[in-house]
Amino acid sequence: MPGVITLTTDFGLQDHYVAAMKAVMMRMKPDVSFVDISHSIPPQDVMAGAWVLRNSAMLFPPGTVHLAVIDPGVGTSRKPVALEMNGHFFVGPDNGLFSLIGEQYDYTAVQLTETTYWREDPSRTFHGRDIFAPAAAHLAGGVELEKLGIPIHRLVTYQWATPISDKDGIQGWVVHIDSYGNLITNIPGEMIERMSMTGECKIYVGNTILEAVSETFGSVPEGDPVAYTGSAGMLEIAVNKGNAGRLLSVKKGAQVSLIVK
Amino acid sequence: MPGVITLTTDFGLQDHYVAAMKAVMMRMKPDVSFVDISHSIPPQDVMAGAWVLRNSAMLFPPGTVHLAVIDPGVGTSRKPVALEMNGHFFVGPDNGLFSLIGEQYDYTAVQLTETTYWREDPSRTFHGRDIFAPAAAHLAGGVELEKLGIPIHRLVTYQWATPISDKDGIQGWVVHIDSYGNLITNIPGEMIERMSMTGECKIYVGNTILEAVSETFGSVPEGDPVAYTGSAGMLEIAVNKGNAGRLLSVKKGAQVSLIVK
Amino acid sequence: MPGVITLTTDFGLQDHYVAAMKAVMMRMKPDVSFVDISHSIPPQDVMAGAWVLRNSAMLFPPGTVHLAVIDPGVGTSRKPVALEMNGHFFVGPDNGLFSLIGEQYDYTAVQLTETTYWREDPSRTFHGRDIFAPAAAHLAGGVELEKLGIPIHRLVTYQWATPISDKDGIQGWVVHIDSYGNLITNIPGEMIERMSMTGECKIYVGNTILEAVSETFGSVPEGDPVAYTGSAGMLEIAVNKGNAGRLLSVKKGAQVSLIVK
Repeated sequence: MPGVITLTTDFGLQDHYVAAMKAVMMRMKPDVSFVDISHSIPPQDVMAGAWVLRNSAMLFPPGTVHLAVIDPGVGTSRKPVALEMNGHFFVGPDNGLFSLIGEQYDYTAVQLTETTYWREDPSRTFHGRDIFAPAAAHLAGGVELEKLGIPIHRLVTYQWATPISDKDGIQGWVVHIDSYGNLITNIPGEMIERMSMTGECKIYVGNTILEAVSETFGSVPEGDPVAYTGSAGMLEIAVNKGNAGRLLSVKKGAQVSLIVK
Repeated sequence: MPGVITLTTDFGLQDHYVAAMKAVMMRMKPDVSFVDISHSIPPQDVMAGAWVLRNSAMLFPPGTVHLAVIDPGVGTSRKPVALEMNGHFFVGPDNGLFSLIGEQYDYTAVQLTETTYWREDPSRTFHGRDIFAPAAAHLAGGVELEKLGIPIHRLVTYQWATPISDKDGIQGWVVHIDSYGNLITNIPGEMIERMSMTGECKIYVGNTILEAVSETFGSVPEGDPVAYTGSAGMLEIAVNKGNAGRLLSVKKGAQVSLIVK
Repeated sequence: MPGVITLTTDFGLQDHYVAAMKAVMMRMKPDVSFVDISHSIPPQDVMAGAWVLRNSAMLFPPGTVHLAVIDPGVGTSRKPVALEMNGHFFVGPDNGLFSLIGEQYDYTAVQLTETTYWREDPSRTFHGRDIFAPAAAHLAGGVELEKLGIPIHRLVTYQWATPISDKDGIQGWVVHIDSYGNLITNIPGEMIERMSMTGECKIYVGNTILEAVSETFGSVPEGDPVAYTGSAGMLEIAVNKGNAGRLLSVKKGAQVSLIVK
């Protein structure tokens, strides 16, 4: 079992923080493979990290260890944890980071209390290197989850605002804007299908009104806005070959309304 | 054969898109190695991706699979393709992305029509994850190119404007500005040598005039502009220890004129 | 011995430069593993690279080869070198890049003069690809350091300004601002402890005055500034859940004064 460890952090790419974690893990398990999911989560934006994990973690092979460190509360009373869900392992702070995956799966979790599995003399500000990375390497090396600490039964969980709907329409929000400027909403594609809005409907977002849910952004002329169910299963609004966030003046958190026509 | 897959995309580094492709490929071929060429190609800039591929792909060992996804036309009629050139494999959309490598080599290409080699139930907006990544993993695992689809004989090909020249000089353009601000032109070093301009000549670019083609940027004092044949074989203009794009007020596409002296 | 090579450069992430180096090394040693330390060192900022190396290199397993290319003097008289320190290898330009690690260890160094270990027909502007990467691959493959060139006994070394102190206090500087906006100073944690300033003291930095050295940034309310000994062993100033660089109007190089209370 060579062991695959993914990394998701808000450490950015100019500092030594990511390399320090990898170095610690390579000392413990030289044959480990790393896959960087993202180190460009906006600083301290736990839910942005939760979103990225939700969309990628379970695609990896079973047995993968997902090390996730967006940890604004490092050194305070927030708990360091490890959990097992659906045959995957997760290690990080108990601050809501695993909320969006946890919605879909049962989990077994421990608080990382067993200091023998930590790096010696851990710092107060870099648990990624000193507590989480060692735990991830141990799990990748076959150490049982239960050995790393005491069981905990409830993790801190945040939920995204659920879209509101009645027979006339749906009211949702933009929960993520990707690097193309595509607006990802919290409105599941199935909800739209269930309400038979896939063809014609009215969508109010930012400075524009759309008249349909389309199949893909290539369905409209270049420069036009378009709504479709994206690869994460959610309603997205894009501008074909343009940046919707900029062109429609929309920021994360903006309201999106669908009205039955 | 462990299999090496390189990745070149405009996905950026904050989203889950790159990780999703890697995860899909690791499920199919656990012992694969990934090398990220770049995920910071400017969004939808196919020719910027073509430039990066031109300068790096063929340096990898023969048998390498190059997965390239700059795909503004995803979900429209543009074809998903795979090709073999000079012992390397390439997978991506048929939109000109392989133009600059293809100039130099013959290729065998197929359109990716065999849906049994795709991910089940592919999305309309993320062929990277659902069509291209699986094709790359199959090729890395030894599946023959011909199995993935039907032969196609002409790929979409764009050419960079060729520099214009007569006995008095050369007229070219800035085709790339790198992260140092160095200006890379479409004027091959050999063209300059052939016209014996390597020593003295006049070069007009942005707000400055240079009087020679030098050997390297260290040939001039700090802060001075300098022209030389760069590591990609093209005329480059830099400022020694400075940012030429900014200091000479030059943008991609700007004109560069060399006049015999 | 599979061989681990780390990479630290100012090449950025949009160009082909990093991939070109990796490709060259994979041709020479197909089973090598790469770990990217950072490619986002500010362009030509040798000491920023030295800082990142200081904080990460020695955490890797012994035998690791650290390829570091922040090389504003490429093509001039600055020497290409390789060195061995504390069981680790380093390859790069002799321009001060190894200063901050070298402070702590003895080293054996050679100037890379043996052209048989270079890439054929090396360019004048990309020694990373043509001289340094091949040297790193040779070292990872077990070639002895001494074979790569002639011994040199003194490397170019820069020192960071040492903090000034007397019985009343310490005067230091901000030497790095990380991607969270945390201010890292050149004042070692031990110096503060030695002067018994760990509890109360007065710290003047930017537009604020702090009254103590705390244990971690979670020790103060959200939005408040806080000083503590960071994970690199140096005094750091942060804003709990905020960006200290921005909120305290502090740039790299700014003065930090600690006064005994």
